[in-house]
Order: sequence, then structure tokens, then C-alpha cells
Amino acid sequence: MKLVTYRLANQEFVGALSADETAIHTLPFPDMNALIQGTTIATLPALLADAPTVSMADVEILSPIPCPLADAICLGMNYLDHAKEAAAFNHQSFDRDAMIPVYFSKRATRTVDPTGIIPRHAGLVQQLDYEAELAVILGKDAFNVAEEDVADYIFGYSVANDVSARVLQTKHKQFYFGKSLDGYFPMGPCILTADSVPYPPELAISSKVNGELRQNSNTNQLMTTISQLVANLSRGMTLKAGTIFLTGTPAGVGMGFHPPKFLEVGDVVECAIESIGTICNTVK
Amino acid sequence: MKLVTYRLANQEFVGALSADETAIHTLPFPDMNALIQGTTIATLPALLADAPTVSMADVEILSPIPCPLADAICLGMNYLDHAKEAAAFNHQSFDRDAMIPVYFSKRATRTVDPTGIIPRHAGLVQQLDYEAELAVILGKDAFNVAEEDVADYIFGYSVANDVSARVLQTKHKQFYFGKSLDGYFPMGPCILTADSVPYPPELAISSKVNGELRQNSNTNQLMTTISQLVANLSRGMTLKAGTIFLTGTPAGVGMGFHPPKFLEVGDVVECAIESIGTICNTVK
Repeated sequence: MKLVTYRLANQEFVGALSADETAIHTLPFPDMNALIQGTTIATLPALLADAPTVSMADVEILSPIPCPLADAICLGMNYLDHAKEAAAFNHQSFDRDAMIPVYFSKRATRTVDPTGIIPRHAGLVQQLDYEAELAVILGKDAFNVAEEDVADYIFGYSVANDVSARVLQTKHKQFYFGKSLDGYFPMGPCILTADSVPYPPELAISSKVNGELRQNSNTNQLMTTISQLVANLSRGMTLKAGTIFLTGTPAGVGMGFHPPKFLEVGDVVECAIESIGTICNTVK
Repeated sequence: MKLVTYRLANQEFVGALSADETAIHTLPFPDMNALIQGTTIATLPALLADAPTVSMADVEILSPIPCPLADAICLGMNYLDHAKEAAAFNHQSFDRDAMIPVYFSKRATRTVDPTGIIPRHAGLVQQLDYEAELAVILGKDAFNVAEEDVADYIFGYSVANDVSARVLQTKHKQFYFGKSLDGYFPMGPCILTADSVPYPPELAISSKVNGELRQNSNTNQLMTTISQLVANLSRGMTLKAGTIFLTGTPAGVGMGFHPPKFLEVGDVVECAIESIGTICNTVK
């Protein structure tokens, strides 16, 4: 099932796409966070039976989680080929055996809609870059969850672009600021519920800039798996239902090219994941 | 004015301390985030006129912001003497001229009450450390605010302990996980409203472990000032009313001693800031 947040007559609603994706069954929750915290995937079909329907043609599809309940938790360097290109860009040696998960966070007071704008932040940002990522959304509060139980905690998946200001990211030593600027968290176009694909998801992931293929991999290439990620962090942190994890990006980001191919005003960035969909954002 | 969150008959309330600090004037907001977003410092006195009063003896004082609306934004290495001790602990050279602000974030699904427990997280955490810090709470949404205007955006101040698991903090390269474990964000005992002290605040800050003085400095020693912090970040990020900033810690944390003095079960950590108060937390 594909869940969306949409705007109709200046109001925001949540709903589920019809099988042919031409209509939306509106669900009785004020927003996606409330839906995730107020129901389970298993109970959604019963809610759909009586749901009023709107045509896709009449609505504007928004980011599925416009206002995350907390900063997204991100994994850095989680595809082997990207870890190598990042080390090369920063003139660091690369040691596969020394790799351990890099956790950081990304703030968004408001995530960007699937066809929304990525602001250039000229004057503040040099080396603007894209990172196509699988977003994983937690379905229930998790503390001290064993790896083999993590699948039960996953609500669904979405496509995210972990837009990054490379100079700010590197200059301040911690990634936070360079990852958290307004407009640097495009997400969507839907949440694919976890029951829609086998676990762990093995889905083609790619990005294009102005139609040119840049990243092309599969989510089965994650070095730290979704189960390891949630199990490791939940050993010490209570992870709330609705938490968004960004699971890292494969090779082919702008800084991976010689010379680098950073984003400029007017560039169109598409990030796509098989079975979920595509987000397409223009730098402005 | 000192604002508190307190528990009475299993319910949580917000209020303002009476002048002699023996009573609390209860304020008509469901929690501190709602108070900050729903009013201003200037309008608080009018609300107090009709406020019902409870005795301090009858209530339990909680963290003033039990559930932050977003991860706290933290400054690393923001007192010169602490930057030196951290470099020495990590066997790094120290270069004053090369210092730039280090921004990271700290999650707390629930902050710890002023006399609450810091969990040891044995098995997961080695080198548990304390960091007394001035917490600054934003009073209104800020975007692209000039340094000279920042004072108008400050709601108030509190005392925080940026409890840190040094091995996790260092091992994962980004500080996030080692700073964000459950129970690692004690805060309180109140929010001192910004109009209570001259801006920028020049307040003695200290910490003790089991009564032994460890940190002893003044908030006038911040290298990146509160005005610079908010101005710099707001150039690219919308900072919401209620955002908590932790402004860094002075020298004297556990890792600064030879040999280091890390926290163990049973240790009592007091963090104090002049005019605000003291939080006193036991490791368990």
C-alpha cells in the first residue's frame, strides 16, 4: 500500500493510493505522524473500506511526512562504493576493515515535496550535492530490539534526497549544519508500507541530474543493514514511532566525479527507488 | 522570572516561581513548548495576576522542557580551555586560529529531571562523562537574524548536563549517538527568562562530582557567542521557537584529567549556573 500526504482546497490530508493510483482513499488522521502513531499497517485495510475518495488529478502530492517529529537519523558511508569516493574527495586513505557506522542527524522544520524546490542558498553554500537514499520509517517505539525482531518495527519506506552542502559539512567537522539547511530534505512521493515488499527490501536505487544517470545501485548493498541500524541504536536510545532513518547513499554523488559535478541553479535532480517512486526537485 | 514544569497528582503543569521561591503560580498552558510558542516574556506578568498557586512543598519539579520539540543543537569546543583538554585527550594538536564552531545535535525523547537518574548503560558505554552547559531557549522562529537582533529572540536560559559516552562519541566519528542515549540530557531546575539578566549572560558555571569541584568558569568565556550561534545557523536554517541550544562546556570534564575521571554507578553530578540554579543527578 502507498500512503500519501496531499493538499486539497488549502488543507492537508493523508490517504492511501487506489490500486491503479488514480485516486486516494482519505484516512481519518490529521497527519502522517498521527497515522503512524495511531494505527498499524495491519489495520489500515479495514479503515479503507469506508474511506471517502478523491481523484489524484484534483490534489497536490506533498512530502509524506511534511513535519518530522524529530530530526532524521542518518547513516554516513553506508554503501562501499560511496565510502571510497568520499575518502578520495577528502584526500583520506580508505580502509574497509576500519569502517564502522557513522550516525548523524538531519533537521527539517519542513521536508520538501516530491516536486518541490531545493534552495541554492547562494552566498552560504558552495559545493551543493545530492544523495539518493532509502528512507525507513519506524512504526512503533523501539528500545533494545534484537536484530531478528526489527522487521516488526518497520512501518514503511520512502525516497529521500539527503541534500548536502559539502563545504559546510566538512568545515564544521560535524555534518549537522551542512545537512540541515532549509529545503535540503526532499522526500516522497509516498510511504510504501513495509508489508508491500519482502524484508529486507532489495530495490533498485538511482539518481539523475538533468536526465544524466549519476547513481545506480540497489538497497541490498547497505553495509549496515536496517536491522543492524535499529538494533544498534535501540540498545541505548528509545526510537519513537515515526522516526525517519536515512540509510546512506551509493556512489555517484557530485563530489565523486573528476572534476566534481555539484548542483547549480536550474538543475533538476531525480531520485528513484523501485516500487516506491521518484522525487524530482529543481535547484532554485 | 523562573519558569518550571512540575508534577502534581500525576499530572504535569507549567508555572512561574513566586519571588521567595516557596510557591508556583500555575500558568494556563499544557506544557512548556506550548507556553513558549503561545506567549512572550512580556505578556507573562499579566497572566500571573489571576494564576492559581501551589506550594513548592507539594510538587515535584521536573525538567522545564520534558519533551523537546526537536533535537537540541549543540556547540562543541566552545570554551578555549575545554577545546585544549579535548585535543590532548584525543592526541590531536591544538590550533586556536583554526577553530571554527562545531555544531551537532543531541536527541532526548525525554530530558532528565533536575534530580533524576543518569543511566550507566553498562555494556554499551565506556568513559561516561559530564559537561555542564548553559542551555539557551529560543522564543520565536528565527531565520536570517542579524547578530545585533538575536537578543530579541531569546526566551530564556537553563542548566544542562551534556552527558557523553566518549567511546561511542569518538568511535562513530560523528558525536550523535554518544550524546543521544536515553537519560543523557538532564536539564533544569527552571528556565530563567531572558529579561532577568543582562544580555549576553555573564554567569558563573560549575560542576561537581561527589562534591569535588570539577568545572568552574563563566558563560562570558564562550568563543562562539549566543548571538553568533543564532545568526550563523539562521542564515540557512529556520530555527523554531522552543529550540534548545547547548552552548558548550568549560574545562574540567572527566576526560580532561590525568588519569581521566569518568563517571561510575553511584556518582552524583551537580551542574550549577549562577542565577538559574543547580541540577543534581546520580548515575545508576
